[in-house]
Order: sequence, then structure tokens, then C-alpha cells
Amino acid sequence: MASGKIPYKLILDESEIPSAYYNVRADMKTDHRPILNPATMQPVSAADLSPVFCDELVAQELNDRDRFIEIPGSVREIYKMFRPSPLMRAYRLEKELNTPAKIYYKYEGGNTSGSHKLNSAVAQAYYAKKQGLKGVTTETGAGQWGTALAMACSYFGLDCRVFMVKVSAEQKPYRKAVMETFGAAVTPSPSSTTRIGKKILQETPDTTGSLGCAISEAVEAAVTTEGYRYVLGSVLNQVLIHQSVIGLEAAAALAKYDEYPDIVIGCAGGGSNLGGLMAPFMGDRLAGKRAPYFIAVEPASCPSLTRGVFAYDFCDTGRITPLAKMYTLGATFIPSANHAGGLRYHGMSPILSQLYHDGYLDEARAVPQKAVFDAATLFCRTEGTLPAPESAHAICVAIDEALKCRESGESKTILFGLTGTGYFDMRAYMSYNDGSMSDQIPSDEELAAGLSALPQIPEALR
Amino acid sequence: MASGKIPYKLILDESEIPSAYYNVRADMKTDHRPILNPATMQPVSAADLSPVFCDELVAQELNDRDRFIEIPGSVREIYKMFRPSPLMRAYRLEKELNTPAKIYYKYEGGNTSGSHKLNSAVAQAYYAKKQGLKGVTTETGAGQWGTALAMACSYFGLDCRVFMVKVSAEQKPYRKAVMETFGAAVTPSPSSTTRIGKKILQETPDTTGSLGCAISEAVEAAVTTEGYRYVLGSVLNQVLIHQSVIGLEAAAALAKYDEYPDIVIGCAGGGSNLGGLMAPFMGDRLAGKRAPYFIAVEPASCPSLTRGVFAYDFCDTGRITPLAKMYTLGATFIPSANHAGGLRYHGMSPILSQLYHDGYLDEARAVPQKAVFDAATLFCRTEGTLPAPESAHAICVAIDEALKCRESGESKTILFGLTGTGYFDMRAYMSYNDGSMSDQIPSDEELAAGLSALPQIPEALR
Repeated sequence: MASGKIPYKLILDESEIPSAYYNVRADMKTDHRPILNPATMQPVSAADLSPVFCDELVAQELNDRDRFIEIPGSVREIYKMFRPSPLMRAYRLEKELNTPAKIYYKYEGGNTSGSHKLNSAVAQAYYAKKQGLKGVTTETGAGQWGTALAMACSYFGLDCRVFMVKVSAEQKPYRKAVMETFGAAVTPSPSSTTRIGKKILQETPDTTGSLGCAISEAVEAAVTTEGYRYVLGSVLNQVLIHQSVIGLEAAAALAKYDEYPDIVIGCAGGGSNLGGLMAPFMGDRLAGKRAPYFIAVEPASCPSLTRGVFAYDFCDTGRITPLAKMYTLGATFIPSANHAGGLRYHGMSPILSQLYHDGYLDEARAVPQKAVFDAATLFCRTEGTLPAPESAHAICVAIDEALKCRESGESKTILFGLTGTGYFDMRAYMSYNDGSMSDQIPSDEELAAGLSALPQIPEALR
Repeated sequence: MASGKIPYKLILDESEIPSAYYNVRADMKTDHRPILNPATMQPVSAADLSPVFCDELVAQELNDRDRFIEIPGSVREIYKMFRPSPLMRAYRLEKELNTPAKIYYKYEGGNTSGSHKLNSAVAQAYYAKKQGLKGVTTETGAGQWGTALAMACSYFGLDCRVFMVKVSAEQKPYRKAVMETFGAAVTPSPSSTTRIGKKILQETPDTTGSLGCAISEAVEAAVTTEGYRYVLGSVLNQVLIHQSVIGLEAAAALAKYDEYPDIVIGCAGGGSNLGGLMAPFMGDRLAGKRAPYFIAVEPASCPSLTRGVFAYDFCDTGRITPLAKMYTLGATFIPSANHAGGLRYHGMSPILSQLYHDGYLDEARAVPQKAVFDAATLFCRTEGTLPAPESAHAICVAIDEALKCRESGESKTILFGLTGTGYFDMRAYMSYNDGSMSDQIPSDEELAAGLSALPQIPEALR
């Protein structure tokens, strides 16, 4: 154990980067239900998935046996450029809040891609290269995942084709430019480069695109191009496996100072960040050891855990992917255009969903966006890091929990995930700063519309 | 000394943040000439400067005796949130270049302000607060300095008024929004909030503003507002003093691994980054010890060291400030609009200028901007960090020196400064990526025009 005052930045040595990912599925009491082929309503096999995904990633997707999955040496070498990421002690925030709580946050936004997504992108690019592939395709909305993948592909000399939702490509030309600087080919979606894109353009020439459409184009491009596969940045089991490095590093850094969290808080859109941050601590819970209280934070405008249902649904708004059992608002649900930042996915990682359903993930809390930006502003003025709106959801709840400690006098240890930088979200900050931002909470009727479109599943598989 | 392989990131403990700044002037053989009052042509005194600058900063500006200036405890506490900054070993770049050279870079862009400017901003805000001031004013062009100052003021509860060149405020609304998020009041310049601003608007209603005009407004606002002073982010001696933390940390981190640079490279606009990076190594040179070869890199479009003259000149294009003896292109020189990024100052830090004039700063090299962006692109694809265009000037020369080592077979140790992130410079990257960027090198005639406007100085003071 290190001695003396706990520093502001708890940074592990490069030699302490985990040597293996932790796969929480191996320890889950109720494993989540299989992914279904929507055409046959049968569980998908590795053979079904291999035309779309890299072989090793298919194996990880379906792996519910191996507790640890070795991190390849080449991936660890790349990680050394930006990992271990700092675990920060929020001394100044604690003082500002006048709380006896001890607040820690794991900061994943310090790399050029600006978020935790790079952790999985590097692994996915490596496995694609190892398989001898020529390139990968993906979709991106806000751009975090596309940027991370573009970087990862540049490291491994892999082609990278990104279908970027047209309106995002137009509103965020700089995000697009970052990807191109890393050598990626970025195509605004829908495009005339795919069959499905042409069809959509023919039917709705004025469309500004959607994530569902971009996914469809990316999948089509992958399966119709020799030597290509499709990759995805959240939701999937494989992504949660890779993101476990966040939690493993956090646990190791805290242990050096004899610290252990009482509360773990993460924002949850697709679930990869929270899934990664809480992984080793959830392992403790599942093993019956001391464990923290887990809180998933979601936007009130896209409340899949707090107001959705636990059911089989399509993973994409285009309704072409396999079906997963998860908390969902219905694949057709689209959050208000007023909603800033990410966390706009209609569903939630099947792993997180099952853990929540079974009571291991203790709580989900939905927060309105003005409160989120209040927290973001307080945070950046005291801690000096401008958070992504996504990350600020976790900050908001961390502050609430710290204020509860002030009331109760308890000195709880709070750990939250600061997933990314807000550099590319200044449009949202501007609307907050000028007072034009509003909270937009879907009505029960709006939610009912999304849920009414859930696919029909045979009784035995529900 | 640490053992084993040198890591990718050489990071000191927080306890190893320097306890004192190094003031190279105390060791300079020829001190630079005094700053002159343009009205009287007499050296300015502390009393002359105190209505404009904070008292402690005036003392530092004029201090040529004290080798070390203690870093206040409150400043070190703030530094702990983002310092020591990482010293990176560029293993992947070395491999890409197939060079026997060992390349290190000190990365100062990891904090939210995105550049090294925060080092001085924190110190300046602290001294202002300590003096009991209410607020500070400044100007900003590209926005790095304004952002750094806004952050620093938010830490100390100090008002911050930033005059931002109007065209920049319009072209970079997100930069403006970051400053506002940190609580700064940002006024596009020229504005009707000052006498000089009103005058300029009256004479040239369509002006897009200039740094000279913004300086004039910031100074006027400071001297006419009770409890305010003006602060500046480069060029001045005080700023180089604060930036010495960069070099002190770099030297300490290298020493842990028994390393010492053979070459130190920094981009030079106003000179604060290179001045800070090279400070302790220049101390070695001035003490007659082993020292590196120093290279200042400037843009071919604004070549103050390589094509300017060493003479007294105004520090601002508005010609209202005191006169400093420095390398200059003439206060009226404006680089081509085509020139991307910073490094557009007509002059150069008087300290750097004198060291260059006396041969201690070994070389200045001017590089065209397309070569700079070639280097930036290669760098980000191999090292994973998107550099600011300013920083990429240093990268460009570091690569050239590493390639010379490949030719000669020498395994030199190269250290360069990576001053900032390129997140806010994507417009420039876009023009590079789409091929519309060009090199714009001023003709001899253009330079002669700027130099013909130098102020007349009495013989005895030249």
C-alpha cells in the first residue's frame, strides 16, 4: 500500500495494465437469454454471426464460461500510450460540496478520441487484423465511436469505413475531420454506396439519416466487401468485456490506498461504460463478498431502465439485427431532438439488463438534462475537466449522493465514471448557457407507442 | 534511477512538481535590454507598470537576480490536478521512422484548456487574487490563452473578462462557449464597451478585429475598472518564468532514466513554450555544463527569428504598449490569412531573442505549413495524439532530426514540446485534408514594409 495523503491522480504503472479482461457472464447467476435470429426465432450460432463479425469477437460474444480473457500483447502495447487512465480524487469538488464523502472518478476522456470507446476499438481492430482482414465498417452518430475506431485502425494498418448519420456529419464537420485525419473513410448516411442506402434515398430523399440506417449500411458494406467485417462500440457482450479494463484499473488503484467504493455510479446509454467500470466490483457482489451499491444513470428523455420493459427487441431502429433480451423502450423510440449528447439508445446492454432485473445492479435513476448541465458546470469549474454530457449524468448523481452524505454525516466512498470530454458537445453547453435548453420527458403515451411495436416472441423463448 | 525498459509515459509523482520556477535571466551573460516607455523612451519602472499588471507579476517581469522563484502552495495544489504532465517516449514514431534516435515529447495538451498556457494562467490568477483584486482582463485570438485564463480564474473565484478578436469569436463559437462555461465574460473585439473600441468601430465599422485592438481594449478595461489588472499569456519574462515547470519536469523525468537530451526542439510564436521547455537545459549551457543543441521552430509565414531583425519594437500591432528589444518583423506585420493556427506574433520573447542573438539558442528554423501538417498527420496516426498546428511545427523538425540520425546511424536523444491539442483547429486540418491548404511565404518586399515601420530609438538605448 502506498503511504501518505492520497494524491489527486492515482495512476498505476504501465506494467499494471490488466493482463486479462474480466467476463462477468462467467459469474452471473442467471445468464441472459440467447440472441435470436429474427427470421427463425432461433438462437444465433457462431456460424450465423461470422459473416458479420470477426471470429474472435463472435467467440467472445457467446462466451459465458471464461472468467478471464487474456488481453493480447499488441493490445496492451497500444493501451500503454493512453492507459492506465487516471483515477482522480475530487478533492476540490468535495470541498465545494462541503461533504464528508470521498469522491473518486475514473477519467477515460484523456485520449485523442475523447472517450472510453477506444478501449474496445483497439481490441476489435486487433482481432480484425489478426484474422487477416482488410478493413472494418461501422456506424457513428455523435462520433465518439467512429473516432475511436479510426484511431485504432490507424494503429494496426486496417481500413476503416464509417457511416456517419448525415445530420451529424453536417452538424459536426470537425468530428468527421478528426476521423479522416486518422485515415478513415467517412460516408454520410444514407448514401448511394449501398443498396439499402439507395433505397432509403429513393423513398425519402430529404432524410437526415438515422443510426438505424447507418447500421444497415455498415452491415451491408461489411458483408458485401471481401475481407471486411462490421464492428460495434457498445451494447454487445464483447464490448463490456473489453471495457472491464476501466473497472479493473480503478479497483487496483483504490486498493493501493486501502480504499473500496461504497457506491459505484455510471451513466448508461448502451451500457458499455458502466458495465466496464462496475465489472470487478460486480464480481465481488456475485461472489458474495463486500460490494458497492450500484447506480445506473440514464437521461429522463431516454429512460430504458426506469420506464422501459425487459423484453426481446431489435438492437437497431432499422429492425434488421438479431433480437436481444434487454430493457427497451422499443426499437422505434427516438428521444426528443432537444436531448443533448449520447445516451439516446432505445435499449440497454443485455448483461446490464439481466443484472438489473435480478437486483444485482441496485438502482437506475433517470435525471433531467438541465440538472445534468448544472452538475457539469459545477464540476468543470471546480475539477477543471469539461465533461461530455453523457458523463455529466454520472456527475449529477455523484453530487446528489455526496450531498446526502453531508446530511447524514457519513463518509462514504463514491466512485463514478467520467467517460469523456465535452469538447465536441459545445453546442449543447451553448444552449444551456443561453437558457434555451429545456428538459424533455416523454409522456406515457409516447412510451406506449414505442413499446407497442415490440416483436412477437414464441412463449418458450420469452 | 528507475530500472527496466523506459515506459511510454514517464510520469512524476505529484510530490515531484517543482517547488520553484527557474528564472533563466539570473544566469544570462548578456541580459536583455530594458523595456522602454514609448512616450519618454526611458526604461519603464515598477511604478509605471503597476496600474496595468499585478504587483507580484511586475516584480517578476523586472527580476534578473533570483535564479529560483518559489511556486506558491496554492498554485502547486492546482497544478496537481493536471501536472506533472506526461513525458512521452515516442516508441511508435521511432519505429515508423526506422530511426536509432530516441524521441521524447512533453505533452502539455491534456488539460481541458488544451495547452501549456494554463501553467502561467494559474500563477497569474493566484497573484491577482492574493493582491485582493476583483478580476483580470485579457485578449485572446485563437482562444487557448483565454480558455486557460477562464479556467484559472474559476479556481480562484476571480472575475475574468476576455476580449476575443471578433473574427475568431465568430469562427470559433465553441472556444467562446468553453470560456463562458468556466464563467468568463467574453466580448468580441472591437466592442462598444471601451473608448478605443468605440473609436475603432466608428472609423472602421466593418472591421473583423485584430489582436492589437483586443489588447488595447483589455488594457483600457483593466486600468479603468476598480480592482482589475491586465494579464498576458506569452512573450513576457514572467510567463517564461512560469513555463519553466515544463522543462524542470522534463529534466527530472529524464534524469530518472539516466537520459539527457542531445537536441531540444520547441515551436516558437511568442516564445513561452520553448522558453519553458528549454529553461533548465539552457541553465546547464549557461553554467558551462553539458547541454543540448536548441532549435526554435517558427512558421515560414511568420519568420521573426529567421528573417526579422533584433531591434526595439512595440509588443502589439496597435502600437500602444512599451517597447521591447526583440527579434521582430515589425509590429504592423500580419501573417497571411492562409496561415493556420497560432505562432502569428510579429515578435519573439525578449529572453529568447537575446539568447538567440548571443548564440546560446543554437538555431531557428522556419518550416512551411504543408510540411507541418504532413508531420502532424504522421504523428497522430502513430502516436495517437492529434497535435495543435503550433505543436506540429516542433514535430516536423523532430522528425527531420530523427531522419538525419537514420542517415548517420547516431542514436541521439531528441526532446520536443507538444504544447497542445488540435481539437479546436480542425478547420485547418480540413483544408489540409482536402488539398486546399497552401504555403504562404512572405516576399522580401512584404517583410521590408513591416520593418520600415520600426520605432526610432535613441542611439544610446539601441
